[in-house]
Amino acid sequence: MTIKIGILGYGNLAKGVEAAIRQNPDTKLCAVFTRRDPASVKTKTEGVNVYSVDSIMDFKGKLDVLIICGGSATDLPEMTPLYSKTFNCIDSFDTHANIPKHYEAVDESCKANNTTSLISAGWDPGMFSIQRLYANCILPDGKDYTFWGKGVSQGHSDAIRRIPGVKNGKQYTIPVESALEAVRSGKGPDLTTRQKHTRVCYVVPEEDADLAYIENAIKTMPNYFADYDTTVHFITEEIFNRDHAGMNHGGFVFRTGVTGFDKDNRHIIEYSLKLDSNPEFTGSVLVAYARAISRLNAKGEYGCKTVFDIAPALLSPLSDYDMRAHLL
Amino acid sequence: MTIKIGILGYGNLAKGVEAAIRQNPDTKLCAVFTRRDPASVKTKTEGVNVYSVDSIMDFKGKLDVLIICGGSATDLPEMTPLYSKTFNCIDSFDTHANIPKHYEAVDESCKANNTTSLISAGWDPGMFSIQRLYANCILPDGKDYTFWGKGVSQGHSDAIRRIPGVKNGKQYTIPVESALEAVRSGKGPDLTTRQKHTRVCYVVPEEDADLAYIENAIKTMPNYFADYDTTVHFITEEIFNRDHAGMNHGGFVFRTGVTGFDKDNRHIIEYSLKLDSNPEFTGSVLVAYARAISRLNAKGEYGCKTVFDIAPALLSPLSDYDMRAHLL
Repeated sequence: MTIKIGILGYGNLAKGVEAAIRQNPDTKLCAVFTRRDPASVKTKTEGVNVYSVDSIMDFKGKLDVLIICGGSATDLPEMTPLYSKTFNCIDSFDTHANIPKHYEAVDESCKANNTTSLISAGWDPGMFSIQRLYANCILPDGKDYTFWGKGVSQGHSDAIRRIPGVKNGKQYTIPVESALEAVRSGKGPDLTTRQKHTRVCYVVPEEDADLAYIENAIKTMPNYFADYDTTVHFITEEIFNRDHAGMNHGGFVFRTGVTGFDKDNRHIIEYSLKLDSNPEFTGSVLVAYARAISRLNAKGEYGCKTVFDIAPALLSPLSDYDMRAHLL
Repeated sequence: MTIKIGILGYGNLAKGVEAAIRQNPDTKLCAVFTRRDPASVKTKTEGVNVYSVDSIMDFKGKLDVLIICGGSATDLPEMTPLYSKTFNCIDSFDTHANIPKHYEAVDESCKANNTTSLISAGWDPGMFSIQRLYANCILPDGKDYTFWGKGVSQGHSDAIRRIPGVKNGKQYTIPVESALEAVRSGKGPDLTTRQKHTRVCYVVPEEDADLAYIENAIKTMPNYFADYDTTVHFITEEIFNRDHAGMNHGGFVFRTGVTGFDKDNRHIIEYSLKLDSNPEFTGSVLVAYARAISRLNAKGEYGCKTVFDIAPALLSPLSDYDMRAHLL
């Protein structure tokens, strides 16, 4: 059975989803919906039409899953509950503090309409969350560590670009190697925010901009940079476009803990991702969960789900027998 | 609700399960069953009696889960199907090639008796299998690598000890650092068995034993050592007892793969375990799955399960809300 997928939006993440669908022969991209003029959007997949989001209700009953590729700040809190009334939806909502509220809104829509949606898929939240949960269950007496990077933080890059005199800018979050090593040693160090990550900024200034002002404005910015060791490099637009166009990211999840009657045996669980393309990897996760969500809905399991609720087998195109025989 | 657990067997793994139950306040050890004389076995947990396995049927209806700590060669293929007729069982069956057959036998017992059992829990099979499955679903176009060690291989240690002239022996499997680095680079190397692991043996010879004979017998042993770079160290019994009494183990699971329309973005997923005590870590995994299995049985989901069938949330003592709020 082919899983019929629609994508709402056509930015970087949506293109990552589109590429992932090509790598999963049991899935099919049926439609792209946009808030822009549909004539201005051209998909890479042959034969797939682009529609105005206003006509999305015409697809009721024609899609197994709608993957919503919008922003967590304003798009998803509105869109996922709304479209869950009609479709099984998947999003990558990543404002950790607001997940419970978002969950409630989506769950209500799903239960009233016999749909099944999954929120907060991707790698963090997503694969990193799964690692945290498994590791906490296995080592109840332990400590968690999550490191991000090396990779581009969109929020911090945006913050740089809002400073007067900045033409373009990009911020890399970089885990501190000595902090990683301290965690890997199993000693269970207490690490402050500053000790875990450094921030490196590449800034293209406007002509005649006050570089000292910009550097100070970045390094003292509360919440974003003030609590970190921050380095600012001024570069030309040419270098920026040549060296900083990528969307690489990644990170590490650790749990260290002890077992035994005397708690004297130490264990270290480490999971890491090194991703050339954050949106393509995230899109690949979303497509795997589309498979799971369409199966759950077919079984009559309605409501909002998270990655915690999905048995790993539901993500796979393999038969249960083949999984047991070849991957267990 | 407290999860009432029985343990069958009282070797290293069973003791690891017993210690893990202490770290999970919602679980309780109710009984230990042994094939030895029960009077000869003393548990570490106050107030827990040891019974002959012959009286295990007296506990029908009194245990939520029976954790069977037996060997994969002869014990588990017989025990898990047998006791699944009466109890929800968990085992750590680890003969990968025979998993499908074992699954069928246990599934038949469970379905005929409305019980729920889980086979092949631990770290490989177990946590490593889960990593392989998730990573395969996310990166369908990629390559898998599993490395074991540094750690003690029981099977290889046994093989050494069967050589005439060997009084005691232990074998460590060690991943080749350059092979790990080649995989981490994302280049997707093809690696032979010999290129991935080396084997280091510590041997206590009998008095007047022929050391050259022993070393040659080890290094040329088919299946076990002939395909590896093997080093043999002869040591005294004192040094053996001082330095080689531990049960540490661990390993690495990688998947590297590509995404994108031109498949030009590379991603590296790495999971690793460094375990001071193989049996205590394995025991901790088994206890987490005991929680899941008792919940599934209470919901009327009968049959044989593997780690692939268990949603991560089922392993946790936390409420769904707390998981979403704090771990997602």
